[in-house]
Amino acid sequence: MSDEKRTEIGQLGEFGLIDYLTKKIKLKNESSEKGVGDDAAVLNYEGKKTVVTTDLLLEGIHFDLTYTPMKHLGYKSIAVNLSDVYAMNATPKQVTVSIGVSSKMSVEALEEFYEGVYAACDRYGVDVIGGDTTSSFTGFTISVTALGEASDDELAYRNGAQVNDLICVSGDLGAAYMGLQLLEREKKVFEAAPGAQPDLSGYDYLLQRFLKPEPRREVKTLLDKVGVKPTSMIDISDGLSSEIMHICKQSKKGCRLWENKIPVHPSTAKLAEEMGINPVVAGLNGGEDYELLFTISLEDFEKFKNQDESDVFIVGHITDESKGCYLVTNDDNEIELQAQGWNPIKKDVK
Amino acid sequence: MSDEKRTEIGQLGEFGLIDYLTKKIKLKNESSEKGVGDDAAVLNYEGKKTVVTTDLLLEGIHFDLTYTPMKHLGYKSIAVNLSDVYAMNATPKQVTVSIGVSSKMSVEALEEFYEGVYAACDRYGVDVIGGDTTSSFTGFTISVTALGEASDDELAYRNGAQVNDLICVSGDLGAAYMGLQLLEREKKVFEAAPGAQPDLSGYDYLLQRFLKPEPRREVKTLLDKVGVKPTSMIDISDGLSSEIMHICKQSKKGCRLWENKIPVHPSTAKLAEEMGINPVVAGLNGGEDYELLFTISLEDFEKFKNQDESDVFIVGHITDESKGCYLVTNDDNEIELQAQGWNPIKKDVK
Repeated sequence: MSDEKRTEIGQLGEFGLIDYLTKKIKLKNESSEKGVGDDAAVLNYEGKKTVVTTDLLLEGIHFDLTYTPMKHLGYKSIAVNLSDVYAMNATPKQVTVSIGVSSKMSVEALEEFYEGVYAACDRYGVDVIGGDTTSSFTGFTISVTALGEASDDELAYRNGAQVNDLICVSGDLGAAYMGLQLLEREKKVFEAAPGAQPDLSGYDYLLQRFLKPEPRREVKTLLDKVGVKPTSMIDISDGLSSEIMHICKQSKKGCRLWENKIPVHPSTAKLAEEMGINPVVAGLNGGEDYELLFTISLEDFEKFKNQDESDVFIVGHITDESKGCYLVTNDDNEIELQAQGWNPIKKDVK
Repeated sequence: MSDEKRTEIGQLGEFGLIDYLTKKIKLKNESSEKGVGDDAAVLNYEGKKTVVTTDLLLEGIHFDLTYTPMKHLGYKSIAVNLSDVYAMNATPKQVTVSIGVSSKMSVEALEEFYEGVYAACDRYGVDVIGGDTTSSFTGFTISVTALGEASDDELAYRNGAQVNDLICVSGDLGAAYMGLQLLEREKKVFEAAPGAQPDLSGYDYLLQRFLKPEPRREVKTLLDKVGVKPTSMIDISDGLSSEIMHICKQSKKGCRLWENKIPVHPSTAKLAEEMGINPVVAGLNGGEDYELLFTISLEDFEKFKNQDESDVFIVGHITDESKGCYLVTNDDNEIELQAQGWNPIKKDVK
């Protein structure tokens, strides 16, 4: 670390810092008419609907800088917001990025953060159109707002699930949660014996799922291809159990999830067992996987069958509201679902 | 204080808190199709341009809870963002409001904050369409994003000022700055002698200007009425000097401000003199007045002359870029303007 260049924020001055961090921005989308540099950005959606979502990320609550590389943090800050846009079956187009930084932080650290921001925006074709840069007396603070577009008939809400609809998820669950458990374990080892090298080998998949999640753009591509519109959709930030209960509550329905259908990656299962955690519980209640959870009608399910590349898992079905929300275990017991995100302090207002 | 009801946030739970704080929301604008309650809000601007602006407000940097009532803080958080929308000559329509709260804060305190948010939104016809509510280990954190609409020919940018244009401000300057000085002075008195009652009498105007600023909607009303579009516009958050330099830089022009034309309220002048501050310096460099600063052509100036209700002050004119940016003093000296916001740590990226 000592050889690395370190520029104090005060050397650039605040206007200089903003110029430095935003000079690379080139607008990519036709709907982004005017980005950074005025009182507000100007967008033109030309008759399409605009979707808007926002997340506030605070040091110590949503991320721990001890084990989170700044570039990953920038990438993830964008990814989690784009995930909300995809969960509307819409296409993200713009973001604003606001940060509160303490004077402890160097310009190089902020540059890394923005490298991650720009990498995510480039990958998903999104423009950075504004933000706010301020000092912070406390921790590093990140606030991202994402905007996207959709035609009226594309939009998928949380309230449209119907009885007998199949419940689908776009990938395996619980991996991000186990990635976090691993990082927390190694942090404790390091704190007990400073200098100890963390043992993260063999768990790249879990770490990547936690540190650098990808929003599920390909679900929209697949749905468009097979011509299916989900009856309801949400992204899994707080855990499958919590999210399906949002859909059921807003759709006024019940559900059955099947224990043996919850997709868990072998690495997730391996580490969970090593740490004495039930892998199904990790899959059911572990958050931050940012997979999409959606419901489709039985007829539409047929349309997926010839899709080799399909990465869609059926995990249950929708029932009448009076039947409640339950997990059907492998031994045919029914356990009532709990709205317990693994991160109970953070809940979206949205 | 001891008689006041205090509900711990934990009693409601996080989902309960969100329901509690957002239950009063009724959408007012046709362009707000879907607000709080899904992954994202859905807006429909029907062919108009969308403007987007965002601000991050941190405890200890942007506000001091020792002397800032929560309701005022909520109101101001909205007002400063709407001010940016009006500075585009656009009409604000929606906001998202995200907050980070420590467990020290009661539900009643948050409710007061939202009362202020809703009061500002009601006054300016704006819908709250989403946000994010999270715990904070550190201070109270507020992030607001405002969206508005405008037709293409309404929008006023910072880069359109022309040589000989008149420089206008929508009201007196320096009052918010002096309001802050007063509160800081009384805070020090209180810290030295706890129990002492603050002496704020006679300065209601200054306190109101600092604690509860109003965005200048009436400027748009007036401009529409007389049929004038500003050649450039910006809102005064960092001080007149700083803001006119933004306009000059982006318009590639210079300017002359006239010392004897800078509008200073009698209360501002009185307290400034009492505290040994030059009232013109307060007017020139004091921030947070949220007046609008705009330029108009000489011909358009005639159109304002019959407006009795006009609260527009001419403070200078635009020159060729080579002439630089100067204040012309009462004794005909020229002092070069400095981009020194009174709050040098906070600068917009926008």
